[in-house]
Amino acid sequence: MTETTITVGVDRLVADAVSAGRTWARTPRAERARVLGAVAEALDAAADRLVPLAQRETHLPEPRLSGELTRTTFQLRLLAAIVTEGGYLDARVDHADPNWPMGAPRPDLRRTAVPLGPVLVFAASNFPFAFSVAGGDTASALAAGCPVVVKAHEGHPQLSVATAEVVTAALAAAGAPAGLFALVSDPGTARAVLTHPDVKAGAFTGSIPGGRTLSDIASSRPEPIPFFGELSSVNPVFVTRSAAAARAEEIVTGFVGSFTVGAGQICTKPGVLLVPEDSDLMDRLSRAPLPEPARLLNERIAAGHGRTREELAGQPGVTVLAAGGPDQADSPAPALLTTTADHLVKEVESLFTECFGPTALVVTYRDEAQLLEIAEAIDGQLTATIVAEPTDEVVSALAEALARKAGRLLWNQWPTGVSVTYAQQHGGPYPATTAPATTSVGTAAIDRFTRPVAWQGFPDLLLPDELREVPSAPVPRRVDGQLHA
Amino acid sequence: MTETTITVGVDRLVADAVSAGRTWARTPRAERARVLGAVAEALDAAADRLVPLAQRETHLPEPRLSGELTRTTFQLRLLAAIVTEGGYLDARVDHADPNWPMGAPRPDLRRTAVPLGPVLVFAASNFPFAFSVAGGDTASALAAGCPVVVKAHEGHPQLSVATAEVVTAALAAAGAPAGLFALVSDPGTARAVLTHPDVKAGAFTGSIPGGRTLSDIASSRPEPIPFFGELSSVNPVFVTRSAAAARAEEIVTGFVGSFTVGAGQICTKPGVLLVPEDSDLMDRLSRAPLPEPARLLNERIAAGHGRTREELAGQPGVTVLAAGGPDQADSPAPALLTTTADHLVKEVESLFTECFGPTALVVTYRDEAQLLEIAEAIDGQLTATIVAEPTDEVVSALAEALARKAGRLLWNQWPTGVSVTYAQQHGGPYPATTAPATTSVGTAAIDRFTRPVAWQGFPDLLLPDELREVPSAPVPRRVDGQLHA
Repeated sequence: MTETTITVGVDRLVADAVSAGRTWARTPRAERARVLGAVAEALDAAADRLVPLAQRETHLPEPRLSGELTRTTFQLRLLAAIVTEGGYLDARVDHADPNWPMGAPRPDLRRTAVPLGPVLVFAASNFPFAFSVAGGDTASALAAGCPVVVKAHEGHPQLSVATAEVVTAALAAAGAPAGLFALVSDPGTARAVLTHPDVKAGAFTGSIPGGRTLSDIASSRPEPIPFFGELSSVNPVFVTRSAAAARAEEIVTGFVGSFTVGAGQICTKPGVLLVPEDSDLMDRLSRAPLPEPARLLNERIAAGHGRTREELAGQPGVTVLAAGGPDQADSPAPALLTTTADHLVKEVESLFTECFGPTALVVTYRDEAQLLEIAEAIDGQLTATIVAEPTDEVVSALAEALARKAGRLLWNQWPTGVSVTYAQQHGGPYPATTAPATTSVGTAAIDRFTRPVAWQGFPDLLLPDELREVPSAPVPRRVDGQLHA
Repeated sequence: MTETTITVGVDRLVADAVSAGRTWARTPRAERARVLGAVAEALDAAADRLVPLAQRETHLPEPRLSGELTRTTFQLRLLAAIVTEGGYLDARVDHADPNWPMGAPRPDLRRTAVPLGPVLVFAASNFPFAFSVAGGDTASALAAGCPVVVKAHEGHPQLSVATAEVVTAALAAAGAPAGLFALVSDPGTARAVLTHPDVKAGAFTGSIPGGRTLSDIASSRPEPIPFFGELSSVNPVFVTRSAAAARAEEIVTGFVGSFTVGAGQICTKPGVLLVPEDSDLMDRLSRAPLPEPARLLNERIAAGHGRTREELAGQPGVTVLAAGGPDQADSPAPALLTTTADHLVKEVESLFTECFGPTALVVTYRDEAQLLEIAEAIDGQLTATIVAEPTDEVVSALAEALARKAGRLLWNQWPTGVSVTYAQQHGGPYPATTAPATTSVGTAAIDRFTRPVAWQGFPDLLLPDELREVPSAPVPRRVDGQLHA
């Protein structure tokens, strides 16, 4: 494609999205919810076609992919329920008050959330359903009332097109405006969409180099736009002395299961396990049965994993603790490396790093105070896990320190497996994400794609429904400061 | 100051803020609210000292400054009430559910908001109390649980120091941790604070060049941080044909009062008034009595206003409609320029621009369809105003178009005067702000300075109070998806 072709194509694509978006934004919420439900139904009905395609292109096992599709359509339905309820609007009604104590009368002022406008979603490689064409970003942007352009991931091109066809047909059949959803596959086209003045937000799940580049493009536009990028996370696990003593076997089994699930290609994979040097955990970990090698998503990811593992293993003070074997091309055997907490603190940048694939680093500490030192030294994380007994002295300070670094803290559970629910927080300070106050999983994911608007002194009929004196359907609101559920 | 002195000073300043911030973050909300109330009380008690200082440095009239101080301390008290209530935490509790329909059991998951960490606030020149040292940014960051470093505005240095002294003494007397609040005046120091790795957000009210530069610094740090900048707004007013016919005199009086209040040095000043060409509004506006010249905040602002007014007046198709006179140095006479909607649409970038000071542009239109055309053509705004009758055909489409461009829409009211209340939205798409989903006025201003964290499977005693099965004080929560006020 020449650059001119791209520009003309992109202008048309975005113009269609803008036009569809206006219709979609004024579509009543219950109606938007019905359309989301229809998309979910169509995807479920296409499982027999989509799952084998996904299997062929990603080499992930069938049960995992079927489960992921179930999760993806559940997500659409949960967001539909949230849109119908309307609590995400954070609707507020302040009646005029001549005696408002700020020193000036208060006018009638009412505030709700409106859709941001066209959103560009970059699909991820490792969840071909849940973080791809019809994944959480697409679902929450559509739910919020925004049109969506998806950049397909080159790792599963046929599945992307097939999924987009299902979504497009379902939207059309349900009566959604044409142009509400589009798929592009060319990276140059995606970049042109990201810099188009009518595009109002970007969402991304992937690596630091790619994500930071796109985030920088978004923030250096003439009109900067929000960019919700999920980039990288090590997801450390802190095992206290007493937990190591009480539950060694359970910890080994849980950890090995968690760092190897999906062949370690999961953004919440526990990449670092901190254990007391004098427990028998090290011995058990060195003898733990590791799963068979599994084929990684694609050659680029396999090459990246191999390179990062080699770099880690080559650092002074790092040795191999356990390795399945032998490595095959694109199917590396799971491996555990090990080092000490002293080394980790000194070389935190090179040692505390994501190795996307079936590799993790076991770090031995002398003293639980080192756990706090490491919690202070690390960058932002999606998750941080504490494996401990409630009476352990260190846990209160450790949980407090980790809440400053991570979006989700776990207690005696493993971070892989991210529940889609109201209280989920899948985000965290940079480099976990580029927007630490947001989540890409759970019902709050919708909040990324709205902004508030206040109406002052408006006639009731010109107000959005949820701000009228009597809305057509009940909706949670804060009225004159008082929250009504 | 040498660069080394700055670095050492900044490291100490930020370290103190970090340390105080940790204590402050774990201070119970009711206690934080008590401290905010004490600061408000101290500022009120210092009015006799602060207001004359403000008057000397800003040349704003005494009643305006007294009123602004009242508004400022009210804001602290309102935020204190919000912090005590806890609704801003958006607390969510999901109990474990083995039958959760996503296809996997749901763990116990609980989510609340935690403070971002140290915030750098750049004070504004035009509201020496409400948007300065103890203004909305400082108040909402402290309320959220964050330590604050304020960059004083060079326009009112003595008032800044005096205000900071009152705040610091009140915080100390109320038992807040030392280092929670600091004032810096050197621009190089402020820039060093903005790039310090332990500083987690910036807030700013000022001009496009200054604000965009700082926003770009914040987003290009190794760890990008949110930057809440309020930069520029024209605040257009759209007068329909029927309103012009029915209420010409009221419109003229209201508009002149609004564009000249505070000598036009207000971010919500109506800078463009759109009127039908065939109404007698033009004649009335040309004869309207304009207020006496008032001295602007400082020489830089007076020079900027003079330059922008001259540039506007020099555009083809722009003429002078009305001017008080004569201009004195630093005290320009209010003036109205005029042009046509055809010109405006053609030259929207040069004509639709903020002229900070007592100047506004009256734009005549032939046809109400031009109002929609202009609404589409303009950039992001803090406010947009419709002066109309509810039965006017254009208003529904106009309000919808303007909701895409502005943070607050007004109906037959004037945009100056920004009420501090629950439903306020003082923000908008770029260049109105750099963060269109946020507000710097009203109770939602606190949301800028928190981020969500989820706790999975935690023992009750290790959870933040608002997430425990039975919190020590009632707090609004969403429990298993159900909102409880």
